[in-house]
Amino acid sequence: MSVTAAPGFVAAGVAAGIKASGNPDLSLVATADGKPVAAAGVFTRNKMTAAPVITTRAHLEATAGHAVAVVLNSGNANAATGQQGIDDAEAMCAAVATELGVDASQVLVCSTGLIGIPMPIDVIKAGIPSVVAARSADGGQAAATAIMTTDTVAKQVVIDGGGFVVGGMAKGAAMLSPNMATMLAVLTTDAAATPEQLKAALVYGVADSFNALDVDGCTSTNDTVLLLASGLAGSVDEAALNDAVARACASLAAQMCADAEGATKVVRMTVTGAASDEEALLGARYVSRSNLVKCSWYGCDPYWGRIASDLGSCGIDFDPSKFSVSYGGITVCRGAIDADHDAAAVASHMAGRNLEIVADLGLGTGTATILTNDLSHAYIDENMGTS
Amino acid sequence: MSVTAAPGFVAAGVAAGIKASGNPDLSLVATADGKPVAAAGVFTRNKMTAAPVITTRAHLEATAGHAVAVVLNSGNANAATGQQGIDDAEAMCAAVATELGVDASQVLVCSTGLIGIPMPIDVIKAGIPSVVAARSADGGQAAATAIMTTDTVAKQVVIDGGGFVVGGMAKGAAMLSPNMATMLAVLTTDAAATPEQLKAALVYGVADSFNALDVDGCTSTNDTVLLLASGLAGSVDEAALNDAVARACASLAAQMCADAEGATKVVRMTVTGAASDEEALLGARYVSRSNLVKCSWYGCDPYWGRIASDLGSCGIDFDPSKFSVSYGGITVCRGAIDADHDAAAVASHMAGRNLEIVADLGLGTGTATILTNDLSHAYIDENMGTS
Repeated sequence: MSVTAAPGFVAAGVAAGIKASGNPDLSLVATADGKPVAAAGVFTRNKMTAAPVITTRAHLEATAGHAVAVVLNSGNANAATGQQGIDDAEAMCAAVATELGVDASQVLVCSTGLIGIPMPIDVIKAGIPSVVAARSADGGQAAATAIMTTDTVAKQVVIDGGGFVVGGMAKGAAMLSPNMATMLAVLTTDAAATPEQLKAALVYGVADSFNALDVDGCTSTNDTVLLLASGLAGSVDEAALNDAVARACASLAAQMCADAEGATKVVRMTVTGAASDEEALLGARYVSRSNLVKCSWYGCDPYWGRIASDLGSCGIDFDPSKFSVSYGGITVCRGAIDADHDAAAVASHMAGRNLEIVADLGLGTGTATILTNDLSHAYIDENMGTS
Repeated sequence: MSVTAAPGFVAAGVAAGIKASGNPDLSLVATADGKPVAAAGVFTRNKMTAAPVITTRAHLEATAGHAVAVVLNSGNANAATGQQGIDDAEAMCAAVATELGVDASQVLVCSTGLIGIPMPIDVIKAGIPSVVAARSADGGQAAATAIMTTDTVAKQVVIDGGGFVVGGMAKGAAMLSPNMATMLAVLTTDAAATPEQLKAALVYGVADSFNALDVDGCTSTNDTVLLLASGLAGSVDEAALNDAVARACASLAAQMCADAEGATKVVRMTVTGAASDEEALLGARYVSRSNLVKCSWYGCDPYWGRIASDLGSCGIDFDPSKFSVSYGGITVCRGAIDADHDAAAVASHMAGRNLEIVADLGLGTGTATILTNDLSHAYIDENMGTS
């Protein structure tokens, strides 16, 4: 149960042979009855837009926000592949549409994996009948597994909205930075909603989840979050739908951060007391991307001087005399000078997997939190080669 | 010979006991005759400004751009140290001034090392008579050595300006990013020049050197570049002075990049064909700070897809159909798709220490180059703890 938790959806995942490893690499989410339902998406803002993003956007526009199925593959991002890439993305949709007896525009497509390599389209087309045939209400786990790349665990979520369900799956372990947080996610719900309501729920839901996740400052070419609504639970309160979608997104984002490439720490980096929320967000993001700070976290070293230096240089309002930092609620710096503190308690917090760090600028009411992680040897190992 | 290459200057470096290792840590550059000369400086733009920067700025203002000496220490940055830090920086200047029989405002001060730790001011004051006594025209090497922190080699330069000399020394191995490139540098010349001319020469000289160096995107609290002119060579052509200072800065910047923490590659990352020089610079800097790209370089992997993705997401004008990338002059991507190329020749270039990478946006005449490096396991080792 996950992306198929909401009544009205089926899913499947198979090994089609795209990955040399032979691991599952072709995934499908579809309506159980093969009828189109309301659908919406949010996408990467990277101008180096991958072919499946271009294709999915066009299909949602052609259908005024409706879809029967989403086909996803891992092992190849179909990015930086030119017109051939568009043709291949369309071919994936058409092949699924043929199996389901629907129009190709009613099928959406997502790809993740290597950039700049032509799609093995014959392999994918050969695999599509089997993934379509395998679809079932029990197929959520298999679908979530087949979209993994360097992920070590499948990311899934089920949220009880009170009379309706939001379920979902996601992948993402690096190139994780808004906007979007770099990733693929498919969410489903049995709530009845228009495409506009689904889009509003997604925009609301990604703001404090995927768009507040920053692993390495790198925004990818393929980010896509899709939400399909079967409507089987009937109309629901819009606020309740927004909230359930937001909770699903938050859970998937946290799962991605916890599985980030090489990460040994999950860090909630909060900036408070900024002149505005925008300045707080700029500061929190800047610190979260600082390799020197990230190395400190990996080394369990509460070296707040680097956080002070980053916040002083990132362009936001900053006054050393008003600046303080706490690790796990223990203030280690006040007025930008060392504050007497319980070093053993700080060391104990730093040794844990979850760090809570607050830098207070003492200037206003602006606040923001970025979900991030440390920089480890394993991140380098993972990314020394094409992956 | 280096910072003492220009007639009229003496220097020294001693181990005063600031560093626990016992390595040299206290450095002096002074006029040979103890008389003030024209001087100018450029400094970090970090609002978390370290005490020695505040003090040196104030002294240059008080003297209308004149100085007798610069005292520098490694092992402690005197940053995030509050009013006590200012008092300590003033005390360092006063102690040198007493030994030289000049006013404290005629002494400039630079510090580099740990942030947030009070200065061991008694240790420093105890060392000052010995570093002043040791000053000589042969003291350049010792002075350059005593400002090293994680540097593995001393950085020195001598430029023949044609009738005059520019000499200099610098330190810097991480937290290297404009503005300034994070570092300390002291330059001297025997050219005769006003403080205003020296400032103009410095501003010109740092633009394409220290300010075009980006190792880790982290701007430090203590960046300072100082230029003192003894005037013994008489008046010189202003353009010649600017050029010689720029060449000295470029040499020191290249030495810093080559000694960057953990670096195995020195990379000239050029963006051409941008809509403007500003957009080219934004793009080149964005790619130079991308951990995924830097890991590729470490792994000798010409994974241009990550460069395309970064340039597509950094906010500048970008059109995939016009985009190309070359490694060592060999085009590997054209129109944002893979270009037929000699993979063995590219592999050979990537295996070298010096990489030349050009990303062409195909949109205009804007161009910029950033001097940068790769991200290695050793960078993490270096920065896991307080350093």
